[in-house]
Parts: sequence; C-alpha cells; structure tokens
Amino acid sequence: MLNRTDHDNALEQRLKERFSQQPFLDLIGAELGLVQPGLVEFRLPFDARLTQQDGFLHAGVVTALVDTACGYAAFSMMAPHSRVLTVEYKINFVSPASGERFLARGMVLKAGKTITTCEGKVYAYQGEAEKLVAVMQATMIRVSEMESI
Amino acid sequence: MLNRTDHDNALEQRLKERFSQQPFLDLIGAELGLVQPGLVEFRLPFDARLTQQDGFLHAGVVTALVDTACGYAAFSMMAPHSRVLTVEYKINFVSPASGERFLARGMVLKAGKTITTCEGKVYAYQGEAEKLVAVMQATMIRVSEMESI
Amino acid sequence: MLNRTDHDNALEQRLKERFSQQPFLDLIGAELGLVQPGLVEFRLPFDARLTQQDGFLHAGVVTALVDTACGYAAFSMMAPHSRVLTVEYKINFVSPASGERFLARGMVLKAGKTITTCEGKVYAYQGEAEKLVAVMQATMIRVSEMESI
Amino acid sequence: MLNRTDHDNALEQRLKERFSQQPFLDLIGAELGLVQPGLVEFRLPFDARLTQQDGFLHAGVVTALVDTACGYAAFSMMAPHSRVLTVEYKINFVSPASGERFLARGMVLKAGKTITTCEGKVYAYQGEAEKLVAVMQATMIRVSEMESI
Repeated sequence: MLNRTDHDNALEQRLKERFSQQPFLDLIGAELGLVQPGLVEFRLPFDARLTQQDGFLHAGVVTALVDTACGYAAFSMMAPHSRVLTVEYKINFVSPASGERFLARGMVLKAGKTITTCEGKVYAYQGEAEKLVAVMQATMIRVSEMESI
Repeated sequence: MLNRTDHDNALEQRLKERFSQQPFLDLIGAELGLVQPGLVEFRLPFDARLTQQDGFLHAGVVTALVDTACGYAAFSMMAPHSRVLTVEYKINFVSPASGERFLARGMVLKAGKTITTCEGKVYAYQGEAEKLVAVMQATMIRVSEMESI
Repeated sequence: MLNRTDHDNALEQRLKERFSQQPFLDLIGAELGLVQPGLVEFRLPFDARLTQQDGFLHAGVVTALVDTACGYAAFSMMAPHSRVLTVEYKINFVSPASGERFLARGMVLKAGKTITTCEGKVYAYQGEAEKLVAVMQATMIRVSEMESI
Repeated sequence: MLNRTDHDNALEQRLKERFSQQPFLDLIGAELGLVQPGLVEFRLPFDARLTQQDGFLHAGVVTALVDTACGYAAFSMMAPHSRVLTVEYKINFVSPASGERFLARGMVLKAGKTITTCEGKVYAYQGEAEKLVAVMQATMIRVSEMESI
C-alpha cells in the first residue's frame, strides 16, 4: 500500500462505517487496523474483563476478533452494497492467549461468486515478542440485502 | 436428574466455582444452567451490547457461550483437579441469533483418556418459539496443572 | 418408513442413479443403505486395500463414506434436478476404524435456501458390537446445473 | 534443501517406510514427494477410478491425500519411534478437483508437546496451470506405541 488510491481510502471508509455499527466490538475494545483488498487486521489491547479462569483472553474473544477480520476481508472484495454472513468457521488454539496486546489478521484465500474462503491468524505481543495464538479457516457467504441463507 | 445425589451437587458446585472465575462470562451475562455428567447448559439473556451490525447476537458471543458449555461438559467427566483446554472447535451458524434469550448446550460425544470430543448446540427463544442458531463440534484436552499442550 | 410412498421410492431411485455414477464409491465397495428425506446411510465392508499402517480403515475412506452420506442427505431434501456440492466439512476421529463392517449416516440439521448443514456419524461393527468411529459437521451448497460457487 | 544432510536422508527413509505400509495410498496411486522437517508433499496422477459423478477427483481422495501429507509433516518433527494419529481436520473445497495431476502439501503450524497443528493445501495441475483446490486445518496427536487417545 505504498500508493494509497481513492479506491483504498473508500474501502477503509466503508469498513469503518460497518465497524462502528457493531456494539460487541466496541464493548471488547477492538480497533480496525490495516485494510487492503482481501486482508483486514483488528487490534485488541489486553483487558482483564475479557479473560477466562487462567487470566488468558477468553477463546470466544479471540474467535470474535479473527472472525470479524475474516468477514471484513471477504467484504473488502465485494461490491459496495453487499452483505456478508459467516456460514461457519473452525479455529485451533495453539498457544495461551496471554500478552499485552493482540492482532487478528483475516485473509481471503478464494473469493467465489457466492462463497468466500478465508484464513485467519491471531498473534499475541508482549513487548517485542510475537506469538501465534490461533489459526482459523472460515466460510463466508455473500447475500442480498436482508436475505437469509 | 430426578434423584440428585451428593455427587451431582458436588459437580454443580465445582462448575459454579470455575464459572465465577471467568470475567468474560460475567461481562456478557452468561448464567450456568443444567449440569449433568457430560451435559452442561448456559443461558444468556439478549443484551444490545453483544450485537453485530444487524442487531443479532455477535457470532463471537454465540461461540463463547457454546464453547464454554462444551468445555464444562468435558470437565464434568474428569477427576476433580483436572484442567481442560479447548484444542479447537468448528461452528456452523444456521439461523440469525435473534431472540430474547439464548441457551447453549454442550454434550460429550466421547471422553477419551486425553482427548474429549464434544457437540454443542445453541438455541434462541422468542416467547415460546425455539430456533436452532448454531451447532459446534469441539475437541478438548485434559492437562495436568499449568501444563502446556 | 412403515408406509413407503411413491415419493420415497422415487427418492431412492434418484439417489441410486447418482450413486452409480461415482467410480470412487464403487472402487471402495460402498453400498447405499437406508434412504429417507434428510437421512441417508452408506455401508462398507472391511477391505484390506483400504487400510493405513495400523490395519485400520484409512481416515480418507471414513471421510469419503460419511461425506457422501451427508451430501446425499442434503440432496434428498432438494428439487429433483438440483446439484449439491460440498463446501467444507470437519471430522473428529474418536475411535480406531477397526471392524468387519462400517456404517456412515448423514443427517440434515438445517436445510436453507442455498446452504444445507449436515451432521454425520460413522460406526464400526464387530459381530454385534457397535462403536462410534467418527463424527462430521458438513456444509453443502445447492447449485444450478454446472454452476461454480 | 540445497545441502542434504544425513538427517534429511534418514527422515526421508523413515517416511518412505511408513508410506509403504499404507495399502490405501497404494490403491489410489499416491506418491511421496518433497520431504522436509515440518513440510511433506504427496503427488497423485489423475485416475478415473477416483472420481465422483462430475468426473472430478472425489472429495474423499483429496482429503486422504492432504490428511496424509499433514500427518507425515507432523511425524517429521517427532522422535523416530513416535506414532501420530489424526484427531480431527476441517477442509474447504475451493475449486473443482479437475486436472491431470494433483499435489498435496502438509505443513506444521505449531508442534506442541502432545498436539501438533497443521495446515494443508491441495493443488491441481493442467499443463503449466496451477489451481488451488482445497485447504485443510488439522490436529494431530503424538501417542506412545499402540496407546489410545
């Protein structure tokens, strides 16, 4: 993204608008990060309210963050008035979600006419140290306005 | 559970103690429901803070609820001082998570020596109407105190 | 299925025709079993050619059998000239696939307009003993003739 | 692998021995390809016996190939006398499995003490053209000799 175009700026604006309409992301303190066609990142600072019994980030929070990144990555490849729904996802937790901040990255593996397949990764940071926390494989579907699947 | 035994009461007490140590479940307002060996339910009243852009419960909240139910169901089959970690799960969202209250049920399909396989279901209720919202298949692992997998 | 109707017979005929067009199912020796709207079973006798290094049925064979049962279960709920494709599936192997014969059952959990969610189970039999071998959660999509997803 | 070491050669030998003990892989015509610590490839020429009703490679064959690649990749990181079992996997089919030959690549994402998480990809080739066919996320477990999980 060395040369940001009007297209890039419009995409980021479009995602920010959607993002501001998600109360749960606001509740947990998620912040929209890098936005590119087919790749979207979310950041989350550690917050003790979001933990499970061992003091790690709750798996549901890790999942919500990377599901959202994958959904936005899928959305970033679609026409402006599309809607995207999560059909399903699978996530492996490979390390405890401990750290002072977290990053979830969603990437489009294949954008089909109806179905978009995404891959997601979640990293934890403590100072300069980075650790892979979780990996996701997700299926998104493009739907017309308010249509059910 | 027509005849509650001391064992049943001890199990419920054990799960309640664990539950009270999970700040995130408290934040979203989850409540422990039915507890049986191999089957645990959690209830969640609708809360606008937990929604996504369409006003439905966020997929991450649905997931957190049923992951927790599955984890506790696995835990309910183990010796008292065991620890259980979520290795991975997969969840299909089959209807929009709309309703005035929600129920997540976790059930053990197979309790192995190390690995426990669970199935989870999430239902939404509006008045008397019940709707299946999501289905999960999850892999849990029993670990010794503070051991990594 | 105490009272078989013309509809049931037509469904079974339709599935048998599709089945006879799948060379791989013929290669492994799979046989179509019970057929009901939303529930389809396949049987497979043990065959040493289908094993892995421990003499158990190869995970790929177990998967092929139950994926097919799920796909046919989804197909059984659709209009006669529909096509169904597997979007994705997830399978847990809960016991070694050892036995003299195997049964895979595919069941529709939710038949949507475009997406059908299925649950599959695989059992192994040795004499009268039955053992759960694997559980699947699968996503199927209805497509028009030769359309891509 | 510009400088093959004795270690590399021993690893390849060890995988070839295991491979020769899998009748199902022999039946479908799978061939062991690239072998590195944490990355293993399998090749498969097109074979009409392995197809489904549209003439594409059956999903079960695609799955068997990449499951095996993931299992061997996990095995390649373990001590020589380890055994590895597939706990579960999830696979998305992103394009029809059509082509004259196929390649499955299994890669270790995280090798834990007990659990190894892998990612798999399957490609189809027609002349010089390469196409991504499927992506897998798999959970493998290291077990002692003949131990159950």
